[in-house]
Amino acid sequence: MTRYFVTGGAGFIASNLVDRLLQSGHAVTAYDNLSTGQPRFLELAQKQPKFRLIEADVLDEAKLADSIKGHDFVFHFAANADVRFGTNHPRRDLEQNTIATYNVLEAMRAHGISQIAFSSTGSIYGEAQVIPTPEDAPFPVQTSLYGASKLAGEGLIAAYCTGYNFRGYIFRFVSILGERYSHGHVFDFYRSLQNDPTKIRLLGNGKQRKSYLYVQDCVDAILTVIEKGQEPVNIYNLGTDEYCAVNESLTWISEKLGVTPERSYTGGERGWIGDSPFIFLETKKVRSLGWKPKLTIRQGVEKTVDYLRNNEWLFEKR
Amino acid sequence: MTRYFVTGGAGFIASNLVDRLLQSGHAVTAYDNLSTGQPRFLELAQKQPKFRLIEADVLDEAKLADSIKGHDFVFHFAANADVRFGTNHPRRDLEQNTIATYNVLEAMRAHGISQIAFSSTGSIYGEAQVIPTPEDAPFPVQTSLYGASKLAGEGLIAAYCTGYNFRGYIFRFVSILGERYSHGHVFDFYRSLQNDPTKIRLLGNGKQRKSYLYVQDCVDAILTVIEKGQEPVNIYNLGTDEYCAVNESLTWISEKLGVTPERSYTGGERGWIGDSPFIFLETKKVRSLGWKPKLTIRQGVEKTVDYLRNNEWLFEKR
Repeated sequence: MTRYFVTGGAGFIASNLVDRLLQSGHAVTAYDNLSTGQPRFLELAQKQPKFRLIEADVLDEAKLADSIKGHDFVFHFAANADVRFGTNHPRRDLEQNTIATYNVLEAMRAHGISQIAFSSTGSIYGEAQVIPTPEDAPFPVQTSLYGASKLAGEGLIAAYCTGYNFRGYIFRFVSILGERYSHGHVFDFYRSLQNDPTKIRLLGNGKQRKSYLYVQDCVDAILTVIEKGQEPVNIYNLGTDEYCAVNESLTWISEKLGVTPERSYTGGERGWIGDSPFIFLETKKVRSLGWKPKLTIRQGVEKTVDYLRNNEWLFEKR
Repeated sequence: MTRYFVTGGAGFIASNLVDRLLQSGHAVTAYDNLSTGQPRFLELAQKQPKFRLIEADVLDEAKLADSIKGHDFVFHFAANADVRFGTNHPRRDLEQNTIATYNVLEAMRAHGISQIAFSSTGSIYGEAQVIPTPEDAPFPVQTSLYGASKLAGEGLIAAYCTGYNFRGYIFRFVSILGERYSHGHVFDFYRSLQNDPTKIRLLGNGKQRKSYLYVQDCVDAILTVIEKGQEPVNIYNLGTDEYCAVNESLTWISEKLGVTPERSYTGGERGWIGDSPFIFLETKKVRSLGWKPKLTIRQGVEKTVDYLRNNEWLFEKR
């Protein structure tokens, strides 16, 4: 049995991970300030005796250090995950992503914990020159505050691996879909079509191509990497070997909902400032460990629509 | 006339830059907390009517914002420049490099200043897979807290270029030599040989290969790039097209001083944890702008010894 500490444990991906770790018989502490995480995502976990939720902030250094003590392995998944509105509040990415990661590393060091897994992002490739983009792509130029703050987090973790003999697992995610999804284009489209199924407005020209991964496939990949990754710093892209245009995704969502909205566009190649018109990550490295995704992007989108249909309470939160 | 604001303006490289900007008729404000910067480095500048020194810290956001107002262009050169002892005080790199850079960017944004030049480092390439290492080398893994903190600074600047229409000039330096040099292996060797010319102890096996650039060549390169660089984010390696082993450099220093010390070694390929045994940057990109260095590494080392010989007051400071 391993004692896992999961920051942001009430979040979308992390809460799914928490459930899986508990199913495997491990002890799990979720540490979450519930600013975007949902207590309802931990209803299953709360029934397990080996689970504990600590409602606190990763910026509270004393509380964090006190809480992390006695664990073996840290999943640092707490983050400001909003890439689109970063320029409205640049301090948020600095504090909640960069400084928070430093705080987690320092709390670990103070208590002799040296294994950390980190939720990074494909956004750190900026507008990638090589597509599909491998982990050792040409040194990218950042295009978003979110990407920059995650890059800073990756750098800190790698430096702790060299400087203090930590072992790090860094995951560069594409967008994730599935149960407990509560942020992103499927969410926005679903809400818009519920309000008015006759028309919908898309950001950009709708031709932006993106890649997506189903959350259970994502959790499978994470668990495979932390079991098999043997480097001091293990960096893995997580995604599928396909991509789709935003327009296609909307077609799947509309078909699933039985609606045929008229589309209009805000225009331009990008959905927002710093948006990348084509995100598609090379995933040979994680596949070489024996992992592969079970769901296609379309299946992931459809699962997500099903989930939102059964969980309309999520929309009341906004 | 441009009104330049130079953070860390009393430092080694920045004070040389300040003198050159003043010589060209520009107005310059140096902003330095004098923690490692030397007022004596600004003796020439202080005689110029268009020069002003503000003694303050980049972590003092209010003072920084107030001071930066009314300038056209910022050289952000204030930093904790110590790569070797980073693991003794990890917070220092986070605060003085990453958070400080954020503070400078925010102060600029608040006052409508959008051009920034940044002193980054070849250390961000970690243990480079490609040597000589070009600017678009494979995405590196960080090996030092210093490198990680500078990478974070680069990422922030690039994100501000996309998000707020800034223009950025990022310089990845090799080690710099010459007038006002006061930190690094020539300094350490000089001091050791003054104390005892008969023997000397080298970190590692002495075979570490490094690249160096003379400070006046470095300033020439910086001024060339900010004149000619037209991208939103202009990233340039600055170095010479040669490297030398630490052992060779010691030979040049010893010959210059007329001493023949017996050498001993701490052992291992690296001088310290996270040290890279071979640093050699590709400089085709900056050369394509018409710049080239005037001094060889050996000439730079000899100039540095001359400088230290005439400025032994620097050793009293330690």
